[in-house]
Amino acid sequence: MSDAREEPGGLELTPAERRELLDVLSSFALARLEHLAREPAVGEVGAAGNRIAAEVSTPIPEAPLPGGPARIVALLARATEASLNPAGPGYLAYVPGGGLYASAVADFVAGTLNRFTGQSSAAPALSRLEADVLAWLAAAFGYGPAARGVFTSGGSLANFAAIVAARHARFGDSGDLRRAIAYVGGQSHHSVTKALRLAGVPSRNVRVIDVDDAFRMIPGALASRIAEDRAAGGEPFLVVAAAGTTNTGAVDPLPALAELSARERLWLHVDGAYGGAFVLCEEGRRALVGIERADSITLDPHKGLFLPYGTGCLLARDGEALRRAHHVGADYLQDFDALDRDGEPPNPAEYGPELSRDFRGLRLWLPLMLHGAGAFRRALAEKLALAQQACAGVERLIAQGAPLELVARPQLSTIAFRLARAPGEAADAWRRRNEALLARIVARRRVFLSSTLLRSADGPAFTLRVCVLSFRTHARAIETFLEDLAAAL
Amino acid sequence: MSDAREEPGGLELTPAERRELLDVLSSFALARLEHLAREPAVGEVGAAGNRIAAEVSTPIPEAPLPGGPARIVALLARATEASLNPAGPGYLAYVPGGGLYASAVADFVAGTLNRFTGQSSAAPALSRLEADVLAWLAAAFGYGPAARGVFTSGGSLANFAAIVAARHARFGDSGDLRRAIAYVGGQSHHSVTKALRLAGVPSRNVRVIDVDDAFRMIPGALASRIAEDRAAGGEPFLVVAAAGTTNTGAVDPLPALAELSARERLWLHVDGAYGGAFVLCEEGRRALVGIERADSITLDPHKGLFLPYGTGCLLARDGEALRRAHHVGADYLQDFDALDRDGEPPNPAEYGPELSRDFRGLRLWLPLMLHGAGAFRRALAEKLALAQQACAGVERLIAQGAPLELVARPQLSTIAFRLARAPGEAADAWRRRNEALLARIVARRRVFLSSTLLRSADGPAFTLRVCVLSFRTHARAIETFLEDLAAAL
Repeated sequence: MSDAREEPGGLELTPAERRELLDVLSSFALARLEHLAREPAVGEVGAAGNRIAAEVSTPIPEAPLPGGPARIVALLARATEASLNPAGPGYLAYVPGGGLYASAVADFVAGTLNRFTGQSSAAPALSRLEADVLAWLAAAFGYGPAARGVFTSGGSLANFAAIVAARHARFGDSGDLRRAIAYVGGQSHHSVTKALRLAGVPSRNVRVIDVDDAFRMIPGALASRIAEDRAAGGEPFLVVAAAGTTNTGAVDPLPALAELSARERLWLHVDGAYGGAFVLCEEGRRALVGIERADSITLDPHKGLFLPYGTGCLLARDGEALRRAHHVGADYLQDFDALDRDGEPPNPAEYGPELSRDFRGLRLWLPLMLHGAGAFRRALAEKLALAQQACAGVERLIAQGAPLELVARPQLSTIAFRLARAPGEAADAWRRRNEALLARIVARRRVFLSSTLLRSADGPAFTLRVCVLSFRTHARAIETFLEDLAAAL
Repeated sequence: MSDAREEPGGLELTPAERRELLDVLSSFALARLEHLAREPAVGEVGAAGNRIAAEVSTPIPEAPLPGGPARIVALLARATEASLNPAGPGYLAYVPGGGLYASAVADFVAGTLNRFTGQSSAAPALSRLEADVLAWLAAAFGYGPAARGVFTSGGSLANFAAIVAARHARFGDSGDLRRAIAYVGGQSHHSVTKALRLAGVPSRNVRVIDVDDAFRMIPGALASRIAEDRAAGGEPFLVVAAAGTTNTGAVDPLPALAELSARERLWLHVDGAYGGAFVLCEEGRRALVGIERADSITLDPHKGLFLPYGTGCLLARDGEALRRAHHVGADYLQDFDALDRDGEPPNPAEYGPELSRDFRGLRLWLPLMLHGAGAFRRALAEKLALAQQACAGVERLIAQGAPLELVARPQLSTIAFRLARAPGEAADAWRRRNEALLARIVARRRVFLSSTLLRSADGPAFTLRVCVLSFRTHARAIETFLEDLAAAL
């Protein structure tokens, strides 16, 4: 029914043009993947990157850019040089990315089909595939059939939706949020603080609870603080525990926190954006025991399930609590309500903050079908082993006399270490020595690490981190890290 | 540096496997596009769709699904049959989708490269391409250089981020939200109400302002309500106007609302999720005059800029107000702060709720480069003309004696109409006649419309809508709609 031939200058491409566009762009992208292992672990950022940014910046043209797809690829190729490379095997910084190729293909298919999956009624069978993945994840965490989940764009919005559900469960629509008190560990991710702010919880009401020597929230400290707050007329409602902090991969003591939260009638949310997916392997499940008692859990498939960026996930033990906080109806959606909805999958819009959104489920469903869940379990177990390998290597260097201190041993797949402070050394000088160490390691561009601040006798101190999470990182990358660390020393 | 050969059962594909996966999946997706014009405008939903959902539902396998990519395609093809078809030319329901093919290719490239664009420091040149698109959009709306924007997953989160900015500007971190009062038009999208709820504004504080005969918010009614609320001790802080309501495409009187909001020191947010993009064509710009005075504007590139689902946009006239509400720092991001950031593009994480997220800018940048902005302007002008064509056709039917009433003439690209109520007809009977009319039109599966409730002498009444927004919808689709409407009568 569309006009058989588009007018020139229209937005529809001919079949030949579609094929050419995909050929040119996919050749570029596939070549990048084939060269990934030979590429530097980090491209140009900072001043050099900003110069490249100025170079590729192109005014939005009124007519098609001369040169077409080939010119577009040239700009993209140049722009990509100015970036960190989370896709590569040597990326051990922040929380690594990787990016399963099958997910990228899934995104292409989802965008081309462009079905509406924000309401499951509009595409019940595609929504079912997504719901199957969510149900499988919920079961992996030990949740029962009342659980529901929703894919978000990332951990920030998953944490946010959990906080909204917790807030709604306690304060309803119109409680006094100035009395609402939330508890987070001293090592929690800033997206939790940010999500609390977005949800209208005053920053002064966010209690940061002390952590122990292994960077885990101390339940006794939490209990005391709750008692103090109640005595002062506050209304505690939420504990956010970490299943893998960003700094060190620390897992808060989930059984004790679950016990305490139940006793105090607080919503327990577990932020497992980085670490939650480890529940899929045996060793990880042991590290995360107790997580099944959480009211809600964040995990980021674009971290621990190796997807390209763009997919977080929130699971709630009681799906209805999530729905009560997020469901709003509308007249112009009445046709959906008139359908026979028996057997329909849960409706994403009712369990999270979005309505229209991309078909995220496909980018996890497709790799699970293609590779099987076992491949994910094995890769996750390997990441835990690689962190042990990195830790053992650093300990070996220390035993050989390297002036390092191990600040955090792996609880999941992260370690933290730094040059030990020299006797009498000024804090600034100490920091500069560690900054220089990091700079020397990274300058070889074979591996890429990042830093954070972790406690010392003299307050938070500059500390290097190694986080292993890419499916492309194997033993060779850890050996390279240890070589480059030794050389930098 | 990655191990040269992956162990069997790993998550990395060989180059040949990558090529095969793309070939099989893209052949499926491209064939769907080629057959789009011959496909029914709507597939199986409701009970039939849910049966297909049960049929395709596949337990997550431990090993790769037998049959590989071909089996995956077979499941997807079957699942896709059970869906509305927003990609097709006959989709005139809700707000149509379309879905530019170049964006789907961009998603494939972005996912394969998997660069981190949540922090511009991590990929300054790729972030620059995104920032260029945002700056171009801001200028198109008449905003100056202090404006900033952010791409979200859709309009819901763009509206939410605007509301958070408005709330923060008035109440800071810890004001009393029980006094916070927001004003929305009687035809506003439910995502606005939902976003207010998510942001902690009590539902009872959301004032729904009367609309005039053309479904536009009445400034005088708003002014009176503000005065009442102030007198009662409330704290008005926000007006949300619509630039194209979902029901009828009504554009609230933006100049008068801007005037009033400025006088009352209220944040004026314009929800242009559906209609905002029309600012890019001359006729649309005239319809949206005054929008440049809004404090913030939502538009959905996955609606008015024809992208596949997954991209909304928020623009703020004073970018700093957006940043003050959304920026939070973290120790583990300190390496970014140490970079030379001179010339760096604005940092997305500081202007919206997310940190990690997909590289959304590419899916708009690439089509703009490929087609040129002129192609978008022409397509938008065409949609406005098509709605006029649909309206004229309905009026012609009425002139010929069809028992219809036109409920909303096009302010943008939407019309609303229904069977006129027969003298003495019961409300239920009237509703059933209109439901049946819609069912008969849709049953031909050449065009797909949806319904809503719009006022009548006897309260909200079932009304049919035609919304034209897909780049694939041309004059032939409107003629088909008119034929099928005539036949259904």
